[in-house]
Amino acid sequence: MSRNTTDHNTEVKERAKTLVSQMTLDEKISQMLYNAAEIPRLGLPRYNWWNEALHGVARAGVATVFPQAIGLAASFDVALVERIADIIASEGRAKHHEFQRQGDCGIYKGLTFWSPNVNIFRDPRWGRGHETYGEDPYLTGRLGVAYIKGLQGDHPLYLKAAACAKHFAVHSGPEEVRHSFNAIVSKKDLYETYLPAFRDCVIDGHVEAVMGAYNRVNGEPSCGSETLLKQILRGEWGFRGHVVSDCWAIKDFHEHHHVTRTVEESAALALNNGCDLNCGNVYLNLKSAYEQGLITEQTIDISVTRLMETRIRLGLLDDEKHVPYTSIPYEVVECEEHLACTRLAAEKSMVLLKNQDGILPLKRDAVRSIAVIGPNADSRQALVGNYCGTASQYYTVLDGIREAVQPGTRIYYAEGCHLYKDRVEVLAEPKDRFAEALSAAERADVVVICLGLDASLEGEEGDVSNEYASGDRKHLQLPGLQQDLLETIHEVGKPVILVLLSGSAIAVNWADEHVEAIVQAWYPGAEGGRAVASLLFGDCNPSGRLPVTFYRSVEELPDFCDYSMENRTYRYMMQEALYPFGYGLSYTTFQYERVDLEKMIYAQGQSAYLNILVKNAGNYAGEETVQLYLKALDASFRTPNWQLKGFRKVFLEPGEECLVIFCLTDKELALVDEEGAAVVEPVIFEAYIGGSQPDSRSIALTGRSPVRYRFEIQ
Amino acid sequence: MSRNTTDHNTEVKERAKTLVSQMTLDEKISQMLYNAAEIPRLGLPRYNWWNEALHGVARAGVATVFPQAIGLAASFDVALVERIADIIASEGRAKHHEFQRQGDCGIYKGLTFWSPNVNIFRDPRWGRGHETYGEDPYLTGRLGVAYIKGLQGDHPLYLKAAACAKHFAVHSGPEEVRHSFNAIVSKKDLYETYLPAFRDCVIDGHVEAVMGAYNRVNGEPSCGSETLLKQILRGEWGFRGHVVSDCWAIKDFHEHHHVTRTVEESAALALNNGCDLNCGNVYLNLKSAYEQGLITEQTIDISVTRLMETRIRLGLLDDEKHVPYTSIPYEVVECEEHLACTRLAAEKSMVLLKNQDGILPLKRDAVRSIAVIGPNADSRQALVGNYCGTASQYYTVLDGIREAVQPGTRIYYAEGCHLYKDRVEVLAEPKDRFAEALSAAERADVVVICLGLDASLEGEEGDVSNEYASGDRKHLQLPGLQQDLLETIHEVGKPVILVLLSGSAIAVNWADEHVEAIVQAWYPGAEGGRAVASLLFGDCNPSGRLPVTFYRSVEELPDFCDYSMENRTYRYMMQEALYPFGYGLSYTTFQYERVDLEKMIYAQGQSAYLNILVKNAGNYAGEETVQLYLKALDASFRTPNWQLKGFRKVFLEPGEECLVIFCLTDKELALVDEEGAAVVEPVIFEAYIGGSQPDSRSIALTGRSPVRYRFEIQ
Repeated sequence: MSRNTTDHNTEVKERAKTLVSQMTLDEKISQMLYNAAEIPRLGLPRYNWWNEALHGVARAGVATVFPQAIGLAASFDVALVERIADIIASEGRAKHHEFQRQGDCGIYKGLTFWSPNVNIFRDPRWGRGHETYGEDPYLTGRLGVAYIKGLQGDHPLYLKAAACAKHFAVHSGPEEVRHSFNAIVSKKDLYETYLPAFRDCVIDGHVEAVMGAYNRVNGEPSCGSETLLKQILRGEWGFRGHVVSDCWAIKDFHEHHHVTRTVEESAALALNNGCDLNCGNVYLNLKSAYEQGLITEQTIDISVTRLMETRIRLGLLDDEKHVPYTSIPYEVVECEEHLACTRLAAEKSMVLLKNQDGILPLKRDAVRSIAVIGPNADSRQALVGNYCGTASQYYTVLDGIREAVQPGTRIYYAEGCHLYKDRVEVLAEPKDRFAEALSAAERADVVVICLGLDASLEGEEGDVSNEYASGDRKHLQLPGLQQDLLETIHEVGKPVILVLLSGSAIAVNWADEHVEAIVQAWYPGAEGGRAVASLLFGDCNPSGRLPVTFYRSVEELPDFCDYSMENRTYRYMMQEALYPFGYGLSYTTFQYERVDLEKMIYAQGQSAYLNILVKNAGNYAGEETVQLYLKALDASFRTPNWQLKGFRKVFLEPGEECLVIFCLTDKELALVDEEGAAVVEPVIFEAYIGGSQPDSRSIALTGRSPVRYRFEIQ
Repeated sequence: MSRNTTDHNTEVKERAKTLVSQMTLDEKISQMLYNAAEIPRLGLPRYNWWNEALHGVARAGVATVFPQAIGLAASFDVALVERIADIIASEGRAKHHEFQRQGDCGIYKGLTFWSPNVNIFRDPRWGRGHETYGEDPYLTGRLGVAYIKGLQGDHPLYLKAAACAKHFAVHSGPEEVRHSFNAIVSKKDLYETYLPAFRDCVIDGHVEAVMGAYNRVNGEPSCGSETLLKQILRGEWGFRGHVVSDCWAIKDFHEHHHVTRTVEESAALALNNGCDLNCGNVYLNLKSAYEQGLITEQTIDISVTRLMETRIRLGLLDDEKHVPYTSIPYEVVECEEHLACTRLAAEKSMVLLKNQDGILPLKRDAVRSIAVIGPNADSRQALVGNYCGTASQYYTVLDGIREAVQPGTRIYYAEGCHLYKDRVEVLAEPKDRFAEALSAAERADVVVICLGLDASLEGEEGDVSNEYASGDRKHLQLPGLQQDLLETIHEVGKPVILVLLSGSAIAVNWADEHVEAIVQAWYPGAEGGRAVASLLFGDCNPSGRLPVTFYRSVEELPDFCDYSMENRTYRYMMQEALYPFGYGLSYTTFQYERVDLEKMIYAQGQSAYLNILVKNAGNYAGEETVQLYLKALDASFRTPNWQLKGFRKVFLEPGEECLVIFCLTDKELALVDEEGAAVVEPVIFEAYIGGSQPDSRSIALTGRSPVRYRFEIQ
């Protein structure tokens, strides 16, 4: 849906206004809760706004289950994410209309999906980090926009589905205190790190909705923040969609943030700053807030009009025959084509972190027996992360390997240890499954050990019960006995391939030094095990890149509650990473050849072009993730380390080459000053183009340096 | 291991005695706890007696997971159960010796398996009923003996593994009060119902161990009962193995049963009555019981000698090279042959309860789409029941159907509802998955709906957390929304095949009247879904029979705490069953032809022979479960309804016939009088031979009557 069709926008707004003008105050208020009531006399059916689709239509039964968001981010693949979101919208449409026909208008059955999560994964401890696209604002913004475009579709009049950029803003833990937390953030960090992805979603993605966060930002509760919602979102960015509160966030105003004294004051604070829809029930008190003079009916009208606009754009108030998306057949749900897409997405999401002596890919005929070990080897839970749908078939890593090996290859499976407890059987001694794992390893030509986390160990406040508190992690190590198991298995002396299923960085320092290969598989979705097997046996060539820094220890991180970006993420960190943002290996070798710039000096406002020749100089076909980082060498204010400002996926057969052209506009060339202003100032830039960041660790790990360019803005 | 080799028995006993004679009192006591200490100076390694193998080696990692015991019982197949137990022993041996090599001597790693459970499943509410072989003493005894023979092997000197008949005796709930419960039982019920299977295990099976129950029996705690352990077990039956307490049962003596005042008194009561081994730690107090004069060292010697005998018979104190079972290779664990056996067992376990108009088997080419619906359709948990091992591949019903259908057949999966909660998603409205299930059903040519229970709903005191209390069921209906789902789906109008995964009878009265077909699949093991699919598509022909009565309501049952058999099980019930014990349909028709008895009058002590000709008069090859029931017409004391006294599995091709000969010895012909004495008295017997009981309900359901014989004992 193009927001640029001014005529249509005006028409929709007028229609919404007319509708609202016919409502009583009570009726208007009834539309501002997520479970909006019906108004039969106006032909308005009831509608539940709450739906989820982070990586597939969620919580409403069968749907194609894609890799968790963090895995999608690792693909660095804008086209893939857009395609996935388009599939989600197709399945969401098919399911919605089918549910309608069945008379089910409940939660998770509508067309307003509260995705994507474009928060910046600034601290690896955050339990909800796996819902995001990682730690980089540029990557997050590009993928957020891609998701929104795919989900919302390109019809001139109708939205395929409505996306929602969340959680606005400066939201990334700790989960435990989210209902009372005040994130203190500088203007520079706000505009340089926390806001850009949201800005992209609004300005480039035309996202239909924005969800406020639980926390306060510099004292203002996000869902009632004048600064965030009025000045920035609607003022600076011209957002024209609706704002929804996070669920039960508005009652936090008086109950936990203590910025208001009564529920009416909370309702009024949210509404008056432009929070149109309440996930929760505080807006039941809008009437008494109105009676207390805290809000005006005019303000209510503005919000309800926005909500009606969204419903009109979704075609929810039109005859089905006028809305082309209503004809999407139910049969598309989890159809072969969609399953193939999630398998492809899983392959593209995986990051090869280590591959000593090219042990991978495994040669099928050289592997007569494989030990598949670990608590995540046969775990469905570790395939999906959180906010997921139901697959009608899950391929665990064990399933995938079983399917991939030659007939006659013996697979020895052993759970090895519990995901986080010290024993598998309640009544047993600690390490009760180590012996079996050793026996498996001893009999095998190669060991695939599947460790990591699942959504019971990293998640959301209130939804988990684990060894840690409230969804966040307290350390970055492998939980429970997993490290011990890994070392014990390694001692057997067989080649060990470590497959990590997790939604965040694990400090696998020991593994980095000792095991033969490491694959970061994230939560790879329902077909994830097949994708892992494809990678292990070389049926696909890994092209994923880390969307987050892998740190060596929690010790080197700032306090979790400190929202300053200093020493956080690759853009500001001072120490060396275990595995840097942007890092990932391939089975082939890509060579980069600098193509000289036509000009080295640009005037302010001009776009800069950087060209590079990328060649597959190895023996495997494969995709390269070409990355461009920019660093200002002499800005008049503090600037980060180099920052990602472009990326491209290039598939090349062996020997094949292609020219990649990056165009750097003001968006990429602007620097954020201490006041948060984005300025293009006269400065010398250094640009680095290659398969990784230009840091020494990436260079050491990949064995190659990105190509450097230098150019000047005058 | 044949207990009949007197020379060898004497040799083993002498060796054990010599060993015990070298131990100090403390050392002896250290051997009487389940985690027996090592005595290095005597070359005695430490040994953990606790292992489980109810339907496959349990709780120690990968093993072939067979159908739960109640499903094995439904096979009515002695040879099958013996074969399974032999496989269990092979895998148990392989795993044990491998664990030994790895230095793991922990719990669940030894060769003393605390199976089978030969308690009588006298009340369908009992949560642990699925661990048993059902409600009939004869069937339970025959299968218990088969299990023991298979597990213990046939080596002249060594036990392949040691079996343990449990829980001795009169144990079948309620779980909630098991630690303090006093089962009041008449001598007649004791000898007619509760003891025969144990007697068979001891006398026919030569079981190596017997486990005492938690409850008291007529005031005496089972694990310290003079009546049960001294008079009956060792006195009447001549049991020569060891007795182990149920876990932490001895402390119940003073803590819950209040039959003793101190822990030493409890230890003494158990020991003095012949409980040799303590699962728990009360026997740590044997020393102080000894010092208090409550026990003698001689009594301890007797028990420790028994324990050493078992270890000697297992070859645990011999050089591995002398013990042939030590060479069983680790590779047998979950090998193809064993997996084929569990698949076969699952097929044989399933009971076809209804098949209106021969809707089953389904014709593959007539089924273009199938809806697979229900909380147990894709549940791994519902495949296994309790006390299970880990499979490295689970075939749910959904998996099995997916594998079985023709290419191009569309499968619509829908969970439909939670197993017992009123919604699947925590935040959703009730029945949040009904709409999806309806949509699936509407699109399908046929609906397979998988309902029932899992081990979270029926289980053991202390191991479950569910809607019910402490593992037992409070009613016999489908839990949660399942009945509602079933009726809702039925209304769609498509043929509905109900697959019940449960370990006990569910009162599917409504389904019996409304759905097209019902399959009782129990907890069918790791390959269970494939077996269900085989049955649905006619790749196997159902031959399982109910080992328990399916009642219509909990209302018609006596109080759960009442251990009188009056109006319990088919042998004493007065009302009509929903589905009777012994009932089950086939895809073919078996005709029975009476072969006249040579003689109709037998002297006391003579064996009676009954012959019958069984013919497959239908179009499908298949196995018939020929059942023989006996009823005394004019005994001088109360006798039950007819009782199962013989059964045979016969596989017949269409048109094929075979002669089945039953030999009735004193064992079958004896009747139990009010004093519990088994007497063969002059009486007229009526015998019924057929594919079911001779009750009117079975006759109505199957459409055929068993053949009647009458003969006289003079």
